Amino acid sequence: MRIVVALGGNALLRRGEAMTAENQQANVRIAAKRIAEIVKEHQVVIVHGNGPQVGLLALQAAAYTDVAPYPLDVLVAETQAQIGYMIEQELRNEVGSHTALATMMTVIEVDPKDPAFNAPTKPIGPVYEEDQAKALAEEKGWSIAADGAKWRRVVPSPAPIEILEIESIRSLVDTNTVVICAGGGGIPCVYDSDNDTYTGVEAVIDKDLASALLARKLNADMLIIATDVDGVRMDWGTPQEHTLDHATVSQLEKLDFAKGSMGPKVEAACSFARNSNKTAVIGCLDDISRIVRSGAGTRITSQ
Amino acid sequence: MRIVVALGGNALLRRGEAMTAENQQANVRIAAKRIAEIVKEHQVVIVHGNGPQVGLLALQAAAYTDVAPYPLDVLVAETQAQIGYMIEQELRNEVGSHTALATMMTVIEVDPKDPAFNAPTKPIGPVYEEDQAKALAEEKGWSIAADGAKWRRVVPSPAPIEILEIESIRSLVDTNTVVICAGGGGIPCVYDSDNDTYTGVEAVIDKDLASALLARKLNADMLIIATDVDGVRMDWGTPQEHTLDHATVSQLEKLDFAKGSMGPKVEAACSFARNSNKTAVIGCLDDISRIVRSGAGTRITSQ
Repeated sequence: MRIVVALGGNALLRRGEAMTAENQQANVRIAAKRIAEIVKEHQVVIVHGNGPQVGLLALQAAAYTDVAPYPLDVLVAETQAQIGYMIEQELRNEVGSHTALATMMTVIEVDPKDPAFNAPTKPIGPVYEEDQAKALAEEKGWSIAADGAKWRRVVPSPAPIEILEIESIRSLVDTNTVVICAGGGGIPCVYDSDNDTYTGVEAVIDKDLASALLARKLNADMLIIATDVDGVRMDWGTPQEHTLDHATVSQLEKLDFAKGSMGPKVEAACSFARNSNKTAVIGCLDDISRIVRSGAGTRITSQ
Repeated sequence: MRIVVALGGNALLRRGEAMTAENQQANVRIAAKRIAEIVKEHQVVIVHGNGPQVGLLALQAAAYTDVAPYPLDVLVAETQAQIGYMIEQELRNEVGSHTALATMMTVIEVDPKDPAFNAPTKPIGPVYEEDQAKALAEEKGWSIAADGAKWRRVVPSPAPIEILEIESIRSLVDTNTVVICAGGGGIPCVYDSDNDTYTGVEAVIDKDLASALLARKLNADMLIIATDVDGVRMDWGTPQEHTLDHATVSQLEKLDFAKGSMGPKVEAACSFARNSNKTAVIGCLDDISRIVRSGAGTRITSQ
C-alpha cells in the first residue's frame, strides 16, 4: 500500500516539555521506531507539524534585534529541514542505510481570496502585553488577538490547493523512497497568473489538510492522521464514552468536533475519504502497525 | 550537459550588506536570472553557501536564553530550506512553473578520523570577549580562536565522503528536475558501522568540496564554481596580473592560493577535474552562459 502518515506536533515535542533539541530528537526517535514498522512492507510518505518549532524560531528572531525577523514563510521553510532532518536521520538509523529516504522542501499554493485571510486565527511567536501587541500590530501590519491575559500575533490558515513539488515527490515515492515533505502544512504561497509567479505569504496551512491533499495527489491507499488518542471519541466525558471503529464521511459531518484539535483532523480525513474512495484513519502513532491492518484507530470511508 | 553550479555566499548576501530577508531575496533573484539562462538547455543542480545565514541563526539562538541553542548540524539543515526556498521560488518565477524544481535536505558523511577534527578553523556565531569565550569553551566544550581583538567559536571543516540522498538527487536530475541540494556543504554526520547508524556532528563542510563530490557522483559534465571574480587570477597586484583561461590540475597544484578564499575553490575544481576527466570552471556568476560555452572563466582539466 501507499500510505501518507501525518505526525502531530505532540509526536515531536510533548506538551509542557522544554523545547530543546535533545527532547525533540528523543521524541522523533520514538516516532521513527513506530513508522519503521510499516516502512518495509509499504510505500510511506511522512508529513509533520511544526507549531512549537516555528514558534521557537520566531521567539529567537524577536530576541535578536540587530536584524529584522525573517517572514513566516521563510521560518516555515526552516522548520521543514530542521524537523525533516531529525525524522530522516532517526528513521534511517531504524531501517538501515539501504532504504532510500528524502526530505523535500515543499511549497503549497493557497487562494489569495480564501476567507481565512480576512479572519486570522493561528497564534504565532511571542506573547505580549496588550499595549506592546497593539504597537507591533500598528508598526508591522500584524493581526493580533487576546490569548488569556496576554496578546499574540495571529495569522491566517488558508486551505491548501496545489503542491508545487508534487511531481518530484511522486517520482521518488514511485521508486520506493520514503519521502518526508509538506512539513508544517507546507510553505504557503499565492499565484499571480498575470506574471506566472509565486510569492510566499505570512500564513500557516493546517498540516492535516495538507496531508489529505498530498494523499489524494499521490493516489495513496491510506491516510493515517497519527495523534496521541486512539481514535475519534464519542460521548466524551460520559459513561458511554467510546472510540469509533468506523465512520462514514456523512456520519462525521453531522457531528461537531473541537476546533484546533479533533476538528481539523476529522475534516482532513473526510476530505481524503470523500475525494479518493480510499480509507483515512485517525489513531494513535503507537498503534500504526495495527492501523495499517485495520485493527486500530477510527477508519473513515466515503460510504 | 549536466552541470553542477556552486553559488558563493556573496551571490546570496553581499559583504557589508545587512542580513535581512529582503536583501537576501533581492540577491537570490539576481542569481536566479543568471541560472535561468542555462536551465532550458541543460540539466542543472545548484549548491549554495550558508555562512552568513547559519551565523545569523546562531546569533538569534544565543539571544533567546529560555531554550539552549540547537546544535550546528540542525542549524545547517535550517539554512538548506531557508535559502533553498528562496532560490527555488525565484528560479521558478524566472523559468515558469512548467519547469520541475526540487530542494532537498542533504546529509553528507564525513570521516570521524578526519584531521580537521583536531584543528577546528571555521568561525561560527557571535563574537565574544576573551573571558566570556573561555568560559563558554569550558562550559560547552567548544574550541575558540581569536578573531582580531575578539574571540569566536571555531568548528572543524572535514572533507565530504558520501552524500546520503545521492540516489534521490540523481533520479530527479535524470528526469530533468532542477535540484537544489547540499546547501552549506551538506549536514555533516559520521557513520558508526557497528550499529549502521549516522549521527550529526558540529562541523561545517566546505560547499565547493561538497559540490565537487556531488558533481562526480552525478557524472556531471561540468562543475561551475561561481564567484564574484572572473576566474583564477595570476600575478595578483602586479602589472602582469591576468585571469587564466585554462589550467591543468598539475599546473594549479604547484601554486599557492589564499586559504578560505580562492584556495578551496581551486582544490574543489581540481578534485572534480582529476577524478572525472571533465571540466571544472571557476568564474563569475554573471558570465554563466559564456562559461557553459567555454567563453569565460578559468577552465580546469586533468590534462
